[in-house]
Amino acid sequence: MAVYTEIADEQIAAFIAEYDIGRVVACKGIAEGVENTNYLIVTDLAPFILTLYEKRVRADDLPFFLGLMEHLAARGVPCPVPVRGRDGAALRRVAERPAAIVTFLNGLWPRRPTAVHCAPLGEALARMHIAGADFRGRRANDLSVAGWQRLLAAIAASREPLANDLRDELSAELAAIAGDWPSHLPSGIIHADLFPDNVFFEGERLSGLIDFYFACCDLLAYDLAVCLNAWCFEPDLSFNVTKARRLFAGYQGVRELSADEVAALPLLARGAALRFLLTRLYDWMNTPANALVTRKDPGEYLAKLRFHRHVTSVASYGLDD
Amino acid sequence: MAVYTEIADEQIAAFIAEYDIGRVVACKGIAEGVENTNYLIVTDLAPFILTLYEKRVRADDLPFFLGLMEHLAARGVPCPVPVRGRDGAALRRVAERPAAIVTFLNGLWPRRPTAVHCAPLGEALARMHIAGADFRGRRANDLSVAGWQRLLAAIAASREPLANDLRDELSAELAAIAGDWPSHLPSGIIHADLFPDNVFFEGERLSGLIDFYFACCDLLAYDLAVCLNAWCFEPDLSFNVTKARRLFAGYQGVRELSADEVAALPLLARGAALRFLLTRLYDWMNTPANALVTRKDPGEYLAKLRFHRHVTSVASYGLDD
Repeated sequence: MAVYTEIADEQIAAFIAEYDIGRVVACKGIAEGVENTNYLIVTDLAPFILTLYEKRVRADDLPFFLGLMEHLAARGVPCPVPVRGRDGAALRRVAERPAAIVTFLNGLWPRRPTAVHCAPLGEALARMHIAGADFRGRRANDLSVAGWQRLLAAIAASREPLANDLRDELSAELAAIAGDWPSHLPSGIIHADLFPDNVFFEGERLSGLIDFYFACCDLLAYDLAVCLNAWCFEPDLSFNVTKARRLFAGYQGVRELSADEVAALPLLARGAALRFLLTRLYDWMNTPANALVTRKDPGEYLAKLRFHRHVTSVASYGLDD
Repeated sequence: MAVYTEIADEQIAAFIAEYDIGRVVACKGIAEGVENTNYLIVTDLAPFILTLYEKRVRADDLPFFLGLMEHLAARGVPCPVPVRGRDGAALRRVAERPAAIVTFLNGLWPRRPTAVHCAPLGEALARMHIAGADFRGRRANDLSVAGWQRLLAAIAASREPLANDLRDELSAELAAIAGDWPSHLPSGIIHADLFPDNVFFEGERLSGLIDFYFACCDLLAYDLAVCLNAWCFEPDLSFNVTKARRLFAGYQGVRELSADEVAALPLLARGAALRFLLTRLYDWMNTPANALVTRKDPGEYLAKLRFHRHVTSVASYGLDD
């Protein structure tokens, strides 16, 4: 929730003149987006989003992200389309940052997701997985098992050490998950961060998926596990099996899960919970108290991790086991 | 630079349904506005700004502010127009906050103001003063001399005391300014906070004045003194007399200053500098280090105050004395 980089008005005008998108009539910093700076740019033709990539995004990865959005949009996935400048390049620079303009998507993200959102979400996720199948870009998931091991080591080495029992719990969990982590399941392009604030709806119709800046190549069912955690728990951290059932039904209406994928879901969901628990713990310990970003509570994902650890059958997720 | 209050999507939809402005198609928190929460709401008809008034704005003052904007807009001042709901009320409630929707103004605020901006600024300020003459609302300036005395007392009583020499300088300054503060100059509705981020331009054309939440009844020339401080110093705090000359020329092209007003300018400019120095000092001492708001440097306004204290003739401002 921040604008990290201010741009002068003459910088904006000069930058927009490199495109064929009309004349700037308004420009507002947007208070969403934790990693990058986003401006809403309104021209006399249409609204657009200008993103300035801040230091947590690796510049080498940007052609992958922009190419992926272009690829998915061309195949009908409702996502922002990078706009190319007059010289054909979508990835440019402004205010000493890599920057890109993408199209503006209508819709609101659901502040309080309900069961109504979960079927369209599952369907859109499956369509994205299928549309990504012939994308040539490759990017490893640096926040998978090896990344979790590095994060846990960094957290353990922090000046503000974890309580002993939490450290032991996380170490045991990581060892168990890493030991059983599947390698034979279908893989491809995943979004890897499809939280409610990255999914727009117009009424009950899903109108857009945004923020592909964690997208990578990994197990497709892992993406579903990320959504299971992000969408199917209530604010009191109880698990809503109706939401889960609709999420899976929406997904399987487009892409059937294999028996192996279904069987792996409890483990994938534990891994997905551990991934967000570790990054939130790391950020909690490393975000200055005066930062512009609101730190997210790691406890939420510890509770989700423990829930999945005790799942003995995918019937708990509303699936046939 | 913050969104203080999150609104759920169903709250937004229900709120917008109280108006006749179309159906919401997008809603983004805006990273501008220090006192209140602002959302850009796009409907299928037009964009609008939704403001949620946070605790620093007195609810009793809101009818004055909204009435003033409506009054000024009706007289051709380019400012946001409060939109009335189907029941005729512009001031409503959402998310347990007083709230209002105003029209969206095109334009960008100048991140680096130049001399080009100063004549249109002066002209718009004078037009606002004239348009406000028959506005019936009244609101005292609670940040004039008596308010400065209260602020300085609060700062002096703070747990983090001022350096002795600064405290003595401010006390002496306040006594000198209060002793000579004029009461016989033309008064009326003033904006009182017309900084560059509150003035929009499309190219060199001024397209809007926003943020009337400090507007009040006070000396008209004091409003000009606020602008002199906010627009006519360079980033290195040197005074740019060309900017000042254009500001006054723009203003006087619409409303001639009296000889008394001109003579009072150095004192009014000292007062205007002291006002922002005191509120910044107060905020500096009272803003938690982890707040979402970036604290503004009080030193800038101390330098401006000292500049005006040494002005012996309005020729320093580019005016004939």
